[in-house]
Amino acid sequence: MNTKALHKLGYGLYVVTSRKGEKLNGQIANTVFQITSEPPTIAVSINKSNLTHEFIKESKVFAASALCQRTPLSFIGRFGFKSGRDIDKLEGIDYKIGVTQAPVVIENAVAYLEAKVIKEVDMGTHTVFIGELVNADVLTEKECMTYEYYHKVKRGTTPKTAPSFIKGEKGGSS
Amino acid sequence: MNTKALHKLGYGLYVVTSRKGEKLNGQIANTVFQITSEPPTIAVSINKSNLTHEFIKESKVFAASALCQRTPLSFIGRFGFKSGRDIDKLEGIDYKIGVTQAPVVIENAVAYLEAKVIKEVDMGTHTVFIGELVNADVLTEKECMTYEYYHKVKRGTTPKTAPSFIKGEKGGSS
Repeated sequence: MNTKALHKLGYGLYVVTSRKGEKLNGQIANTVFQITSEPPTIAVSINKSNLTHEFIKESKVFAASALCQRTPLSFIGRFGFKSGRDIDKLEGIDYKIGVTQAPVVIENAVAYLEAKVIKEVDMGTHTVFIGELVNADVLTEKECMTYEYYHKVKRGTTPKTAPSFIKGEKGGSS
Repeated sequence: MNTKALHKLGYGLYVVTSRKGEKLNGQIANTVFQITSEPPTIAVSINKSNLTHEFIKESKVFAASALCQRTPLSFIGRFGFKSGRDIDKLEGIDYKIGVTQAPVVIENAVAYLEAKVIKEVDMGTHTVFIGELVNADVLTEKECMTYEYYHKVKRGTTPKTAPSFIKGEKGGSS
């Protein structure tokens, strides 16, 4: 079995955000996808060790901002390779509080989606949160970042908590 | 709510295949994604009205072939806009029988993944089939088709049974 085939799956790149009480947090994710169109539902696979997992689990809401192709690596690093347990990831970042009360990242985003969790699928290391779409907008027609572009052109790495992490590759922690 | 934001989610383009007894079938899907890396699991959202849904439901196995960017529209049309109830979609197509006994499409594929279903999530119009990866390989280093490329460059349309179908857009039936 050649697990490199998993690298041929196509994704975008997103900041997935949530809140717990007054605390706000977000993380990079590549597995945001639509499940149904009537009603519109979206899903995201989040590692249980991530702070954002704890926040979504508690508040039952999340937002996902699709990043533009020109998103700087420093911005992705802030959300993808640092923990909200150590820093306030949203400090100094352009965001708004959404209708779900989750923070919605506007900076470097081409579009955002807000969802209320209607199902949680326990997958061992990860939970798949499935949410009904309650708000969404397109912010710009700039080109979206793809996960492939992030890896190939931007030379980005994958944290070991990501669904798509493969052992032996360069990676950080989130 | 601007549901056009859903168009900013990034996907690849896949032929998802399965079998039921001696019958083989496959369909186009864009929502194939990795859920966990240990063990490697993948998921796909399939419309309940599609024949491939019936086949996966019965055999509990599926394969996904990631298509290359140069895949002809006629090939995508065969799998995406025709029903296996009317034609044998795999006739004349280059495929092999995988370790799961599901057919694995080789033609126009850059990689394939085979999975055994371990969870099914009922989402109304669709089922999300989550499978443990049992076989996978990379076939070529050609560029992958993205869903965006399919829409923008190839001017491809979305069948109304797809998770990403949006009313008012051009679409066919699958």
